[in-house]
Amino acid sequence: MILSALLTSVGINLGLCLLFFTLYSILRKQPGNLYVYAPRLVDKEKSRQQESGDFDLERLLPSAGWVKNAWQLSYDEILSISGLDGLVFTRIFTFSLRVFTIAGVIGIFILLPVNYFGNQLSDDFGHLANKSLDSFSISNVNDGSNRLWVHFSAAYIFTGVVCYLLYNEHNYMSAKRIACFYSSKPQPHQFTILVRSIPSSSGRNISETVESFFTEYHPSTYLSHSVVRRTSQIQDLINDADKLYRKLGRMKSNNHSQQTFRRDGFLGLTGRKVSLSDHYEKKLEDLEVNVRMEQNLSDGEEVPAAFVSFKSRFGAAVALHIQQGVNPTEWVTEQAPEPRDVHWAFFSSSFIKRWIFKLVVPVASFALIVLFLIPVVIVQGLANLNQLEVWFPFLKGILSLTVVSQVITGYLPSLILQLFLFFVPPIMLTFSAIQGYISHSRIERSACSKMLWFIIWNVFFANVLSGSALYQVNVFLEPKNIPRVLAEAVPGQASFFISYVVTSGWTKLSSELFRLIPLVCSFCKRLFSGKDGNEFEVPSLPYYNDIPTILFFGLLGITYFFLAPLILPFLLVYFCLGYIIFRNQLLNVYAPKYETTGKFWPIVHNSTVFSLILMHIIAFGIFGLKKLPLASSLIIPLPVLTLIFNAYCQNRFLPLFKAYPTECLVKKDREDQNEPGMAEFYDKVVSAYQDPALMPVQYPRSTDRDTSPLLHSTEV
Amino acid sequence: MILSALLTSVGINLGLCLLFFTLYSILRKQPGNLYVYAPRLVDKEKSRQQESGDFDLERLLPSAGWVKNAWQLSYDEILSISGLDGLVFTRIFTFSLRVFTIAGVIGIFILLPVNYFGNQLSDDFGHLANKSLDSFSISNVNDGSNRLWVHFSAAYIFTGVVCYLLYNEHNYMSAKRIACFYSSKPQPHQFTILVRSIPSSSGRNISETVESFFTEYHPSTYLSHSVVRRTSQIQDLINDADKLYRKLGRMKSNNHSQQTFRRDGFLGLTGRKVSLSDHYEKKLEDLEVNVRMEQNLSDGEEVPAAFVSFKSRFGAAVALHIQQGVNPTEWVTEQAPEPRDVHWAFFSSSFIKRWIFKLVVPVASFALIVLFLIPVVIVQGLANLNQLEVWFPFLKGILSLTVVSQVITGYLPSLILQLFLFFVPPIMLTFSAIQGYISHSRIERSACSKMLWFIIWNVFFANVLSGSALYQVNVFLEPKNIPRVLAEAVPGQASFFISYVVTSGWTKLSSELFRLIPLVCSFCKRLFSGKDGNEFEVPSLPYYNDIPTILFFGLLGITYFFLAPLILPFLLVYFCLGYIIFRNQLLNVYAPKYETTGKFWPIVHNSTVFSLILMHIIAFGIFGLKKLPLASSLIIPLPVLTLIFNAYCQNRFLPLFKAYPTECLVKKDREDQNEPGMAEFYDKVVSAYQDPALMPVQYPRSTDRDTSPLLHSTEV
Repeated sequence: MILSALLTSVGINLGLCLLFFTLYSILRKQPGNLYVYAPRLVDKEKSRQQESGDFDLERLLPSAGWVKNAWQLSYDEILSISGLDGLVFTRIFTFSLRVFTIAGVIGIFILLPVNYFGNQLSDDFGHLANKSLDSFSISNVNDGSNRLWVHFSAAYIFTGVVCYLLYNEHNYMSAKRIACFYSSKPQPHQFTILVRSIPSSSGRNISETVESFFTEYHPSTYLSHSVVRRTSQIQDLINDADKLYRKLGRMKSNNHSQQTFRRDGFLGLTGRKVSLSDHYEKKLEDLEVNVRMEQNLSDGEEVPAAFVSFKSRFGAAVALHIQQGVNPTEWVTEQAPEPRDVHWAFFSSSFIKRWIFKLVVPVASFALIVLFLIPVVIVQGLANLNQLEVWFPFLKGILSLTVVSQVITGYLPSLILQLFLFFVPPIMLTFSAIQGYISHSRIERSACSKMLWFIIWNVFFANVLSGSALYQVNVFLEPKNIPRVLAEAVPGQASFFISYVVTSGWTKLSSELFRLIPLVCSFCKRLFSGKDGNEFEVPSLPYYNDIPTILFFGLLGITYFFLAPLILPFLLVYFCLGYIIFRNQLLNVYAPKYETTGKFWPIVHNSTVFSLILMHIIAFGIFGLKKLPLASSLIIPLPVLTLIFNAYCQNRFLPLFKAYPTECLVKKDREDQNEPGMAEFYDKVVSAYQDPALMPVQYPRSTDRDTSPLLHSTEV
Repeated sequence: MILSALLTSVGINLGLCLLFFTLYSILRKQPGNLYVYAPRLVDKEKSRQQESGDFDLERLLPSAGWVKNAWQLSYDEILSISGLDGLVFTRIFTFSLRVFTIAGVIGIFILLPVNYFGNQLSDDFGHLANKSLDSFSISNVNDGSNRLWVHFSAAYIFTGVVCYLLYNEHNYMSAKRIACFYSSKPQPHQFTILVRSIPSSSGRNISETVESFFTEYHPSTYLSHSVVRRTSQIQDLINDADKLYRKLGRMKSNNHSQQTFRRDGFLGLTGRKVSLSDHYEKKLEDLEVNVRMEQNLSDGEEVPAAFVSFKSRFGAAVALHIQQGVNPTEWVTEQAPEPRDVHWAFFSSSFIKRWIFKLVVPVASFALIVLFLIPVVIVQGLANLNQLEVWFPFLKGILSLTVVSQVITGYLPSLILQLFLFFVPPIMLTFSAIQGYISHSRIERSACSKMLWFIIWNVFFANVLSGSALYQVNVFLEPKNIPRVLAEAVPGQASFFISYVVTSGWTKLSSELFRLIPLVCSFCKRLFSGKDGNEFEVPSLPYYNDIPTILFFGLLGITYFFLAPLILPFLLVYFCLGYIIFRNQLLNVYAPKYETTGKFWPIVHNSTVFSLILMHIIAFGIFGLKKLPLASSLIIPLPVLTLIFNAYCQNRFLPLFKAYPTECLVKKDREDQNEPGMAEFYDKVVSAYQDPALMPVQYPRSTDRDTSPLLHSTEV
């Protein structure tokens, strides 16, 4: 790729971004789009009054007020709006901006000139605009040249800077986590643990076993427990009832005057004519009765698991951290998630099913990640028109048209690839869900890691090591060849990744802002069914999908920093845009459904360390290829030092992301002792962990149809 | 090697063993050898009266009474004599006997005939005695023959049997551990934890910081603490004083009548003539004064570590398992070892030294293990006489003598190798000691693992993959070649390892029984210095040296089980002998100095699982080489299932080897509440963790020289 082509691409994408921004700034002011662009605010019913006003001209003028609002948002506000997870998410941008500002200064002002004035590639004829992008990369530095020591020093300095910033950030995040804990009100999940694999004892049911065990061994701190029950059948019934209720609601509102009839006999063909809505209402009543019957019956379906609550946080921690029973596979304890975060379906699947999935899912994920390349390669085979003509001779006439052939070779493969990629995050989420985690937040975290590996393998390695998929796996079976193979392949893909940042990165951000799919959906809904206010739900930010993408751009920046510093300005633009856009989205669009309390941060840390090590491996290979063996050997301490740094960070910070220390727990418990509302709170804790499927079900009758349904609520 | 040669070797070694046994049964009855063959009993002063009698003829007749005694020893007796570690040690033999009895039945009656009636090696001329041992191994089965499915089934059945026995044994050991805990008297280390990295707070010393922290956060259970001090200087002084005291003692007893004089001035050449013993006594007194001064002075040398004791075992466990301070690198807690087990030197080394050693020692151990081959290869180059003649031409005359050349080529290399091997266990122990463990038992366990890897690599792999050391390391960098390389090499070494079992294994056991070195030492001492009773110490069994050796024979048996079943009878003899001999030694010779409370067992478990996996890898390769690819693929589930089994065992049993569960701790604490002696015991706990270097030092004066010295005692 030559420089002018890159600049054209940048120009087009910049234009597109500006267009999206302008459209956004207009569309967001239309009251009809409120549910698309500010659902969080609508939910809080703050802005409803403000913006319900009449039409005025200002609504059609683009404005940059939202940028200012997003910019001014402080970290404390983010914390109060989106919790620690939102803070982690915005801090990824802050951290990346810091890293790549420093990297950019070093890269553009020191490395780029060194690369440019080398003449290994010797294409110094022609104008600057016709220069290949490769002449800005390390490939252009002469073999064995002492100028490579500049790159060598840059690698050391950059690693130092990243580690320093990473340490600071980790420190900041863990301090915030503790501060949040200190400032939090008493919450049921702080006082509760989940106990699984409760042994069955003869003559006693599970509830009695739990009661006697904890009153015996934790007499002074034990408060209460609630045994979990298998509720998949009830949940199915409730889902049916919900569907029926919605159908009924729609039917009533649409055809308020005209009555529809059907016969109540076999297949609706025989028997007495009844009003269709009466028929459904009867069915709904039957379902309700069924649900209630099942709820009362299902005592026998107790699962050997219970949420056990204690009178103090420290009491819960004691039971959590120390092995309870003599058999370590019984009385297994783990932290209870927030009540709204519990993944109740987990308890309904049988032990053997969970066990098999636990073994199978990692294998399946690994297979999906590694073998995803195969369909991609096949699809890219479409670009090979001759092959296609051999397979489908009747297409010959069509394929000879220039337009068709261009579409097929140019756009179709990448379109199909994007389509494939579109389905991967939900697949990963499903994988994580059946893998057997008890909370939604844990599932998301697991899906996040899976997605990260997926992207790194299928975008980075697949592009770098082009060739057959099998050959690539082979490379990783011969570890000693890895640095050489990477060093040969990675610099060559610099121009591809620069344009990847510009096209994929920038576009993703502006489409995030523009929310095209929700916009279209909302438009269609309004077109066909009038208002859509009732069934409106505030979305939560899909961290498992967005964090890996951002981290991948970080990886690109770190690995290409000393190979092709030209990528850095484009990355900086990406991170600046992301910084503003996601702050805006957190402010207006997303509201968290549950909290991981900052547990995404270790993923960010690990990914950054991985990127650094990858850079070092490539550097080791590059200096070997460039015939500077001394630099190649002197780079070896760098990954070792980085790993030691990582081990230190794991020791220093990771425990704080797993559990709270005695000091915090005891202090917080002491504060509570003087609180007057604790007795009331204990009552709340006792009933907090109720499976929503076991809540009383009551659909409002026809007379009070307009109020929102009295559905089972999981809030406490 | 042919069968008759093997039988000759077996005959010679069996004869040697019998000779050793006979000599032992006579020598052990001589009163003078009591300190060699029954130091444990002497220490208990049981047998002193019994065997101090006059000479009678029976003393010169060999007898097998000791075999009977050893055989009749029950596990409960072993437990009371040698603790759980002794039990683990004897159970290794029981377990191996069970495994190899079953393996022997399958191997000898099923696999051996199948191998023998193959004709791949086609040397079916001649008599049975002239048969090569290879015709009894899998190499003799025809390529692609369906008889290989017998081996395939044997691999599956054997793995199943080993896993079943392993599970039972693990279950037995963990149950014993819990039972021992229940039946134990209150011991200081059960109530104590070691707290390290105590943060320094301004204006308070470490003792006050500890006091205030634990009274704040563990008000109901905290009992007391003792801060550790840096005592290496005092220890040096005490060592000097000890040496001087012994010298003085020897001097007095040897030359009781004749006085030796020297001058008290410069270098003993000038000044007044004084009695030499008076001179030393004066010096000893000075040293004592110095020690006392240092002991009082060293308050400033507090180490930020303390043994913190609690009023209950559960209280100690709570503080142990939950992170204490907000900074996880401060207030680091770990289980306190028994007071006599504490490795006090650990606290004297500085933080930075410990940190460096912690990083360097594993690397050094790894290097020692892997690179040990290089000197071995060089030494084995000695066997190459021509080379030697080129280097040292003047030796030509000597080397041409047949005897000399035979000695050099036949014995010298193996002698030097054995000499090298002799120094490895102490080196490994030193490595583990400087690696930074706080207890002697932990050091021994670490040395045990190191030795195990050392033996597996340097005896098994070095012999299997003969060739240059570097080439072998290369094999392990290309993982996919490992099965093929092993399958090609391992069966060929069967005859070597059979004779290894017979020569090295059997000999080691009989020399263990005969205790040649202590016997010679004791003889010399009696010859030169009369009695040696006063400076007599009961040895403890060097588990770190013996367990790896035994496990290595287990590995040989498991890997060669289906390759060359002829090894199994010889292994069975080895384990039978070991069973009797080590029981006898535990009964008579060794007494434990400290306990790991059975923590060697997980090493045994892991080593067995490793052996199984190694067998599976070889089987995978062998079936490939033997052109039975279906069997080769069908063997793959076997290691997977074994690893799942291992993971289950880790879950099920390993936690019990790390700490005791709430259930046990609370029950045991309740029992104690009714105990009348607890107040007294608490007093004992408070003073239990005293550095022996800080104990008052007082050597008895000349008047009371005959009583044993009032040395600092570590017992509580």
